Amino acid sequence: MKKLILFTGVVLTVLNCNAQQALWGGSQIVSPETHPDKSVTFRMYAPEAESVLVTGDFLAPQLADTPYGKAEVPGVADMVKDPNGVWEFTSEALSPELYSYTFIVDGIRMTDPSNVFQLRDIASLTNVFLIDGDYADYYRINDVPHGTVSKVWYDSPTIGTDRRMTVYTPAGYEKGDRRYPVLYLLHGMGGDENAWAELGRATQVLDNMIARGEVEPMIVVMTNGNIAMEGAPGETSLGFAPPTINLPNTMDGTFEKHFPDAVKYMDSNYRTIADKEHRAIAGLSMGGFHSLHISKQYPDMFDYIGLFSSAIKPGKDSVSEIYADYDGKLEKQFADAPQLYWIAIGNKDFLYDANKEYRQYLDEHGYKYVYRESPDGHIWKNWRIYLTEFLPQLFKD
Amino acid sequence: MKKLILFTGVVLTVLNCNAQQALWGGSQIVSPETHPDKSVTFRMYAPEAESVLVTGDFLAPQLADTPYGKAEVPGVADMVKDPNGVWEFTSEALSPELYSYTFIVDGIRMTDPSNVFQLRDIASLTNVFLIDGDYADYYRINDVPHGTVSKVWYDSPTIGTDRRMTVYTPAGYEKGDRRYPVLYLLHGMGGDENAWAELGRATQVLDNMIARGEVEPMIVVMTNGNIAMEGAPGETSLGFAPPTINLPNTMDGTFEKHFPDAVKYMDSNYRTIADKEHRAIAGLSMGGFHSLHISKQYPDMFDYIGLFSSAIKPGKDSVSEIYADYDGKLEKQFADAPQLYWIAIGNKDFLYDANKEYRQYLDEHGYKYVYRESPDGHIWKNWRIYLTEFLPQLFKD
Repeated sequence: MKKLILFTGVVLTVLNCNAQQALWGGSQIVSPETHPDKSVTFRMYAPEAESVLVTGDFLAPQLADTPYGKAEVPGVADMVKDPNGVWEFTSEALSPELYSYTFIVDGIRMTDPSNVFQLRDIASLTNVFLIDGDYADYYRINDVPHGTVSKVWYDSPTIGTDRRMTVYTPAGYEKGDRRYPVLYLLHGMGGDENAWAELGRATQVLDNMIARGEVEPMIVVMTNGNIAMEGAPGETSLGFAPPTINLPNTMDGTFEKHFPDAVKYMDSNYRTIADKEHRAIAGLSMGGFHSLHISKQYPDMFDYIGLFSSAIKPGKDSVSEIYADYDGKLEKQFADAPQLYWIAIGNKDFLYDANKEYRQYLDEHGYKYVYRESPDGHIWKNWRIYLTEFLPQLFKD
Repeated sequence: MKKLILFTGVVLTVLNCNAQQALWGGSQIVSPETHPDKSVTFRMYAPEAESVLVTGDFLAPQLADTPYGKAEVPGVADMVKDPNGVWEFTSEALSPELYSYTFIVDGIRMTDPSNVFQLRDIASLTNVFLIDGDYADYYRINDVPHGTVSKVWYDSPTIGTDRRMTVYTPAGYEKGDRRYPVLYLLHGMGGDENAWAELGRATQVLDNMIARGEVEPMIVVMTNGNIAMEGAPGETSLGFAPPTINLPNTMDGTFEKHFPDAVKYMDSNYRTIADKEHRAIAGLSMGGFHSLHISKQYPDMFDYIGLFSSAIKPGKDSVSEIYADYDGKLEKQFADAPQLYWIAIGNKDFLYDANKEYRQYLDEHGYKYVYRESPDGHIWKNWRIYLTEFLPQLFKD
């Protein structure tokens, strides 16, 4: 055997990829490109296309006709073709945020072929990019100790199936024997157990805020609130079945009823501090609704409650015992008042009035809460910001 | 406060998504659709397009000119437009496998907008679908106990940075105090710590084979072999920087040198059985190369070695001590021969001759190994199959 063989496999291993790029005719396009002034250029190679648009939440929203009447949808901008067939659009300087976008090529929506970073929100994939600075630095992966992010299946005797969840354990968890408080962090309608960790950047926020000493080290449990699913699309025995937007049984009381199974699993399998003083629950939209009803159903379970752009009351057809005796259960919950009952909503949120009415109810009964009103509506930007504001208030005693 | 409020938020929460679909003009297209005979129909709504093609590994490969000469690339098929502007192609009946594909619309490569399931292979995103049956049933998520899949950062004093890896712990790990053997499973060039869990379906294979009693419950550690990166693209402090195909330092000995740091982390932080008899290492392509050189560098560390379509020898410019004294180190490794030294390769693999030469070397020296030759070349199909064949041979004593 020869002692020295030039290892050409290094080159050949990447052949298929390069070959495909050659086959598909794309030159190396950089998109998106963030400039020093925080403006961003988007590019798309499409020499034969007649029109290429970019749409995303970095553009001012526009009003559009929808099946539900006029509503705000992401803005759209025309891209301009250069002599090489590359379409281009440069945004104005953008403020720090995690943004999403897609292209529309001759009327067909598509993701940016030059950007492999995509996130799924319900049934849509969009590309993402991050503008650094300000609170968005919490969303970056910084050079700090990182917690572990696990996909875990727990059993629910109440439902009779196993269910998938995301568990964040803080840096150092594996090594020590220390016990930790637990935050249960719930997603909105159409989301799943991946939503807070992906769109919500929750694991980056936790790593960064714990590293800066702004937040107590804690375990964070991100359950799946869609009781008709065992886990996120593609992650269950349904295989690669398309995501369904309108899932049944999301707000019929079953999720709330099953919730102690998740808490029991955590307390039996992780080094939690298994008492009310060391448990928090928070959620966005439907997850806020779940947090409200779980925390009043089990008043001895959670000392910290966060309602982010939360739905409040069930539909009038809801017959679950979970939603029965609303007044009595809230009275019981606030008799031994939680350390923190935090309500946050944007002033453009379609749930604003429902939250206002709920705050009035709490005021009338003398139930203490903290209220935070932000700009904007029912969007991830707000929920990420709320998380950075909610976390430092937990487990300080 | 009114007792009963119709909860319209249920509808409005999904507004944005539906509104976008309305804006973008797409009707609800089902793609891909698998028929009872296992043929698959692909669909794409593009009324203005002049040509729509589908390309993927479910089609017979074709020879194409590449920067490296003629080479096999995925086949391409014409789709046909119906009067509603929906382009369609139906495959022949497909054998069980995890397949990938993309569309080419008027020369522009794009993923299927009706299929949110995509996998990144190096710098390309492709859609995926699974045809059930035969060995591909191991790749399904079945209703069996599921292990936990964790993204973990370990410290490497050798390199001076933290590094990200994927750790699979078998179902029941969290609850008990049982100790487990460990398989280290390494990716190929351009892959990362996510590759085996995603493209390789390794966690599904383990869940299913353990549940059937065909494989010993074990911990599986999927490291990142790209020493220039701390983790996969998008998962490090580099942020959403585009993936780089030709990373430096992948095969210069640094990864092999650092490897005991990963083993030490596992033995310190997980309930491993920390001896040679309960450690295996295997990898594909560059990961096979790493497995070969790590196992001969640390002959007391691994009793089971798997080389899947493996690169064998370093480039002639490699000066690392890791690659020095090749003969002497192999002699030492085989003096206390491993329980299993398993070499598998496809008969069309570009590394076939290098493996043949290596087997001749092993034969000449009387070093025992088991050889498995399969059809096809340097592709994930083979590596998934090799995994299902390698796992049952581990830790049986």
